[in-house]
Amino acid sequence: MQVALRIAYDGKEFHGFQRQENASTVQGVLEEAVGEVNGGGTTIRAAGRTDAGVHAFGQIACFWPRVRVPMDRWPMALNRLLPNGIWVHEARAVPADFHPIRSAICKHYRYRIRRDYTGMPFLGNFAWHLVEPLDIERMQRTLELLRGKCDFGAFQVSGRPVASTVRTMYHAGLREDKRGLSIDFVADGFLYKMVRSIVGTLVEVGRGRMGRSEVESAMRARDRSLMGPTAPPHGLYLVSVHYPTPSRGIIDEG
Amino acid sequence: MQVALRIAYDGKEFHGFQRQENASTVQGVLEEAVGEVNGGGTTIRAAGRTDAGVHAFGQIACFWPRVRVPMDRWPMALNRLLPNGIWVHEARAVPADFHPIRSAICKHYRYRIRRDYTGMPFLGNFAWHLVEPLDIERMQRTLELLRGKCDFGAFQVSGRPVASTVRTMYHAGLREDKRGLSIDFVADGFLYKMVRSIVGTLVEVGRGRMGRSEVESAMRARDRSLMGPTAPPHGLYLVSVHYPTPSRGIIDEG
Repeated sequence: MQVALRIAYDGKEFHGFQRQENASTVQGVLEEAVGEVNGGGTTIRAAGRTDAGVHAFGQIACFWPRVRVPMDRWPMALNRLLPNGIWVHEARAVPADFHPIRSAICKHYRYRIRRDYTGMPFLGNFAWHLVEPLDIERMQRTLELLRGKCDFGAFQVSGRPVASTVRTMYHAGLREDKRGLSIDFVADGFLYKMVRSIVGTLVEVGRGRMGRSEVESAMRARDRSLMGPTAPPHGLYLVSVHYPTPSRGIIDEG
Repeated sequence: MQVALRIAYDGKEFHGFQRQENASTVQGVLEEAVGEVNGGGTTIRAAGRTDAGVHAFGQIACFWPRVRVPMDRWPMALNRLLPNGIWVHEARAVPADFHPIRSAICKHYRYRIRRDYTGMPFLGNFAWHLVEPLDIERMQRTLELLRGKCDFGAFQVSGRPVASTVRTMYHAGLREDKRGLSIDFVADGFLYKMVRSIVGTLVEVGRGRMGRSEVESAMRARDRSLMGPTAPPHGLYLVSVHYPTPSRGIIDEG
C-alpha cells in the first residue's frame, strides 16, 4: 500500500518540480520532509512535473511508507516540516499498483489572465496581466478546434520527444468574469508546455494577429513556429488529477 | 501642489514601512523610485507607518514633484521602477497644505482570519489561520464595547507615547463568510498595534478564555496586560484612508 498526497504549491517559491542540486524544488522539499518522517531517503512520484513558476492546487505525489503513521496524520506531519509555499491537503492509501501518471484518467489545468491591475501587487505572480483589448469571441471560436481527439504536435515545445502527439481534450473552455479570464483544459495527457503554447496562441488570436483558420492549418502542419509565443508560467495551475475509484477521492479540489 | 499616491503592498516583501539602512522598506523603495523620476532625493510622507508584515490596499503617500509628469502617468512610471510586492494604483494632485495624516478624516483597517486550510499555501501570509472553534456571537458582543468615542489605552502597545489614547471608532464590525472572518475598523486614529491588540483579545473571547465584562474592566483600567496577546501582523490590511473632498477620490478601494 502506498500513500498518495494531494498537494498545493506556489510556483514562484520553487525552481520547478523536479529535484535539482543546489536549488529548492517541489520534489526536493517533499522528499526531504517525507524522508524525515519515513526515517530515510524516500523517492516520490508525481502526476506532473510542472515547470518553474507553474502553480498547483491538486498535484498528486505518492510514496511507500516505512513507518506506521495514521493516514490522516500525514498532512500535518509534513506541513510542519515543509517550507512556505507548499501545503499537503490530504493523504490517502492507494493500491501497490497505483501510478500517479499511468493510473490517471485525466488532468485539469487552468490558465488565468487578469484584464486590469486591481489585484496588484497581490496577484502579480498568480496571473498573466493583459490590459489591452482582446476579442474574446474569436478566442472562444478558436478554442473549439482543440476539443476531442486531436494531434497537438503544433503546441509542443521541443525538448521532450514523445511517441505520439495525439491527445484527447475532454474539456477546453474560456470563462470571462469581473476578475479576468479563466481558460480550462481537461485532457488525458498534455505535451511539454502545451497549455502555455495554446494560451499564447489564443491571445494572438484575441489580439487579431492570428485567425482561427491559421491556427487550424498550423495544427494540421504540426508546426510550432506558426503558433503564438508560449504564455508565461505564472498564470498556469495544475488544478486536479482524476483517477478511477477507489482512489478518486484524492483528486477533487471542488 | 503635491502628488498623492494610492499604493498597495504585500507586507511580507518589506521590513515594515519606515526607511531603514540595509533593509528593504516600503518608504525606502518608494523614495528611491520617486527620486529617480523626480531627479533627486525626494521625501515621501504617508498616512500610516504600517509594521513589518502588515499589508495595504490603500496606503496614501505624498511628495512634491520637481518635474512635469502628467498626473495619470505617475503610476506606471513608478510601477516600472518598483520591485515586486508594491503597486501604485493612482496619483492625484492635492493642495499644498495636504498632509496624509493630519488631513485624514478616518482610516479603515481590516483583519482577516481563515477558519480552515483550503487556501493554503497561497493565503499563508495573508490571513491568521485559526482552525479551533470560536464563539462568534461572544466576539460580536464584545466588539460593541469598542464603538464610538473610547479610551483605547488598554489596546496600545507601549513604545510610542501619545498625548491622548482616546479615539473615535466610527465602525467596528465582524463578518463571517465561507472564507473566514473579516473584522473591520474605521476610526479617526489608531494607537500603536491597536487593531492587532483588539483582534488578539477578541480571539481570546471567542476561545472562551476571556469574557466581555473582563474586556470592559480592562479598558476602564487602561491595562494592556489584562488584554489578549497581539494578533500576528500578516492578517492586517490598511484598506483605505478617507479625506474631505476634493482629495476624496484617491481613497476608495471599492
